[in-house]
Amino acid sequence: MPKSHHSLNEHRQRIDTIDEQILDLLKERANIVKDVLLTKIQNKLPIYVAGREDLKIQSFREMAVKRGLDPDWAEDFLRMIMSSSRASQSASEFPCATSSPKQILIIGGQGGMGKQYATLFAASGHVVRILDKHDWDKAYELFKEIDAVIVSVPINATAAVIQKAATYMSENVVLADFTSNKTEPLKVMLDSHPGPVVGLHPMHGPDVQNLSKQLMITCHGRDENAYDWMISQFQLWGMRVLNADPQQHDRVMNMVQGLRHFVALLHGSYMKTTELKPEDILHFSSPIYRAELMMTGRIFAQDAELYADIVFANEERRNMLLNFLNHHQRLAEMVKLGDKKAFINEFEAISDFFGDFAETALNESGYLINRLADRFS
Amino acid sequence: MPKSHHSLNEHRQRIDTIDEQILDLLKERANIVKDVLLTKIQNKLPIYVAGREDLKIQSFREMAVKRGLDPDWAEDFLRMIMSSSRASQSASEFPCATSSPKQILIIGGQGGMGKQYATLFAASGHVVRILDKHDWDKAYELFKEIDAVIVSVPINATAAVIQKAATYMSENVVLADFTSNKTEPLKVMLDSHPGPVVGLHPMHGPDVQNLSKQLMITCHGRDENAYDWMISQFQLWGMRVLNADPQQHDRVMNMVQGLRHFVALLHGSYMKTTELKPEDILHFSSPIYRAELMMTGRIFAQDAELYADIVFANEERRNMLLNFLNHHQRLAEMVKLGDKKAFINEFEAISDFFGDFAETALNESGYLINRLADRFS
Repeated sequence: MPKSHHSLNEHRQRIDTIDEQILDLLKERANIVKDVLLTKIQNKLPIYVAGREDLKIQSFREMAVKRGLDPDWAEDFLRMIMSSSRASQSASEFPCATSSPKQILIIGGQGGMGKQYATLFAASGHVVRILDKHDWDKAYELFKEIDAVIVSVPINATAAVIQKAATYMSENVVLADFTSNKTEPLKVMLDSHPGPVVGLHPMHGPDVQNLSKQLMITCHGRDENAYDWMISQFQLWGMRVLNADPQQHDRVMNMVQGLRHFVALLHGSYMKTTELKPEDILHFSSPIYRAELMMTGRIFAQDAELYADIVFANEERRNMLLNFLNHHQRLAEMVKLGDKKAFINEFEAISDFFGDFAETALNESGYLINRLADRFS
Repeated sequence: MPKSHHSLNEHRQRIDTIDEQILDLLKERANIVKDVLLTKIQNKLPIYVAGREDLKIQSFREMAVKRGLDPDWAEDFLRMIMSSSRASQSASEFPCATSSPKQILIIGGQGGMGKQYATLFAASGHVVRILDKHDWDKAYELFKEIDAVIVSVPINATAAVIQKAATYMSENVVLADFTSNKTEPLKVMLDSHPGPVVGLHPMHGPDVQNLSKQLMITCHGRDENAYDWMISQFQLWGMRVLNADPQQHDRVMNMVQGLRHFVALLHGSYMKTTELKPEDILHFSSPIYRAELMMTGRIFAQDAELYADIVFANEERRNMLLNFLNHHQRLAEMVKLGDKKAFINEFEAISDFFGDFAETALNESGYLINRLADRFS
């Protein structure tokens, strides 16, 4: 065996040993984190504290620099370790925000989102009841001695379910909803229930491993003090809670949900007409396009009806989508006329509008694309 | 100090020690990898070998399982370590594919892509000359005793530059181009130069740290043996080389480049009309939409002219974009009529068309979104 191959093998063996040692340390670290979590739960301390995580990251970066390692890379590395600690929480118990358990009724608790919150409230020591669409004959029993009702049903059923639920509720019970638009549900809740009301929009999918660092939008309705405990409970799970004006929230959601999903449908639907299979396209793709195609493709592994509900949520959203078509017609004019100069002008106006954000996006998506290339190429 | 806080502090100190130990091991590992690389370069061995990496990953996963750690997470972890090893190569020398150095002229060598390959060929021991658009008066000198010419100029200048370059080349010189469409440049090269010809499309941006695992598309033109060394050089850098039919390549690129960038323009341009700033939208966004917005926003940190060239590359691409508008008009009809049933039918037809790929996309983008949430939220 030539000398070089000999030394290559020795090097590889040393790398294997190092990897074993790293995994041993990671295992020990995970066990300690589990203990920390348990202590936090016993002492009703929040699971995620942003400031502390930032301090830890800063000191880890400094340790890396001392060793001549790239601090950005070290930070990514630590964040991966931390995210795994968060994921491992999903199996554990959670701290309880109240001294005695609350009785919570989740309407639509068999759906993805309802189920997830039912599990979490229960894991935090509360008593959870579930009312699914076939359970209304048992409604009288289910609503008995309840502290809060959360409506988590499809967007087009929300108003009717709220009105029906309100007829079973006493005045002191908290009424909340999880609908992805907020103006109308909040209005219906305030009109049908004279007690405490809050609109909620959990900004995550039902498939996240746990709620640490996830965003909960709140729209205050009536009698904030009465549902304070629920907000505290979200924060104890590690959620970020952000209060929003319902109209502003809905305007943003028209873009985030309506436009985005319609554009994805448009893209997928057009691919279908060209008969270029996604797999064929991937073959020739850079990691950037791979990321794009995955973001579009993910939609079509999900429920058609759910997306139809999102796109057709309300009149305002449909009008926005029709304006979008008009806009497309204007832009396509440039392509028709081969007017490259107009294209460049429009591009530069958008760059101005995006401002510094475009640079941020380039960096952030660059990070994303590199991770994707590491993982899947 | 209550007992729980006392033990929390002890735990935190132990975590800090573990983190120091992990960083020490990573530092040692990085040094060994550097030695391995040097040995490979001295022995003209390829820098990246897919099979070996897969074996290493498999054994790392098994080590993780033995310790009760999540193997998927461990794999991500190892891939991050490996990707950092690849990144550290960028500073090193590279193996040379030929026994004596080649003389390579890069036309457009001041552009991002030209510059990157100029640096790499030079770092691999070849002699690189650069001809920029103001250098044609020195062309006679620059073309002297050259082995290969690579044309790396904007797409709409490619044909003219190829024709001009060919007049300076002797018959045995290799002619190649880096244009992102392939049918026309290949035809022009074959028509203007009687010697060896190959069309190339490096499927990555000029900002990647190094070329390990990046894709190079080749379209064979004439006399493959004469440019074999160039392909070997790409492979020694760790690139994946894939040969493609130029027409098929261009059809895919119309979608990947033309449609994708036009849709991003459409999205950004429409956001501008709504006056919702990206920062405001981000405030209310889930990690999924954050990923989307970053993929759109990244475009507008880049050069307008570059994107205009991409979108207006050729007649075929422009016609494709006009068909896309027609398609949009048909889909918008559903929105206009409030025809949810038609929307669901179309959605399900796309799901069928995407097939298993949609599930893959859901997983892959889920990974992406979690990484983004770890890193930036």
